[in-house]
Amino acid sequence: MANTGADHAEPRLYLDDLRVGQRFTSASHAVDEDQIRAFAAQFDPQPFHLDDRAARGSLFGGLAASGWHTAAITMRLLVEGGLPLAGGIVGAGGEIGWPQPTRPGDILRVGSEIVEIRPSRSRPDRGMVTVRSDTRNQRGEVVQTLMARLVVPRRSQVDCA
Amino acid sequence: MANTGADHAEPRLYLDDLRVGQRFTSASHAVDEDQIRAFAAQFDPQPFHLDDRAARGSLFGGLAASGWHTAAITMRLLVEGGLPLAGGIVGAGGEIGWPQPTRPGDILRVGSEIVEIRPSRSRPDRGMVTVRSDTRNQRGEVVQTLMARLVVPRRSQVDCA
Repeated sequence: MANTGADHAEPRLYLDDLRVGQRFTSASHAVDEDQIRAFAAQFDPQPFHLDDRAARGSLFGGLAASGWHTAAITMRLLVEGGLPLAGGIVGAGGEIGWPQPTRPGDILRVGSEIVEIRPSRSRPDRGMVTVRSDTRNQRGEVVQTLMARLVVPRRSQVDCA
Repeated sequence: MANTGADHAEPRLYLDDLRVGQRFTSASHAVDEDQIRAFAAQFDPQPFHLDDRAARGSLFGGLAASGWHTAAITMRLLVEGGLPLAGGIVGAGGEIGWPQPTRPGDILRVGSEIVEIRPSRSRPDRGMVTVRSDTRNQRGEVVQTLMARLVVPRRSQVDCA
């Protein structure tokens, strides 16, 4: 099941290949109640992520995925071709928002855009790239915004290594 | 295994009970290689999170947990008493950073501090609270910083409901 990226067909992009405004779209992932409950039981065991009836009486008004579950699914979609970076997707951090929850039955897809590219001064073999990734459901509603700071290797240095 | 919060002994805090500067400490969680690999296989299948040998040749220099795994463990520790908020821990978003990776053998603990409290003008039954949560390993090194925006109910409104 795990795709470690080694067998991807599309080219992997180095810092030198990226430009501001460049866009990428991931494959999609269908979320169901079992996935929501399983993640919550392991990492976010709160009633509104575990039990639909309890969730109806909560702020969510019905079963909702943990925001961290939405983040984890987003990462999977990015790793599996949604953001084809050389060296993989290595994040230093970022800003995350959940405008609305992921629900059972949602089909998620991630659209990403390169926002900023900053070659490192101290480390000539790499740079820091800011990427905005919006995760949307099948109705186009945004369930997560992520502005991530990623470490991306430079082509020249890697080739010379 | 799941603790849904209903049977917690400590009191649960409403917006009215919180003050800026208030601190909380979570229980601890020991991370091992199996947990790191299992999370990565499901949500972040990159070689440096799956295979120690591959990880040695990467930027990480050895097997490292996905940042999203560190985030998920942090959430579990907060939910299980690390941040005893009435209504549970409901996040609208926040800023996250991973100054260094979580490694096999790390024992994580989360220290949190209330940074800002803003009663809602439009919704008198709740407010927005900013909480800083630092996740540290057994050597006191910070593996994650999180500045989270949480929705917290007010006591008076809940009691009158």
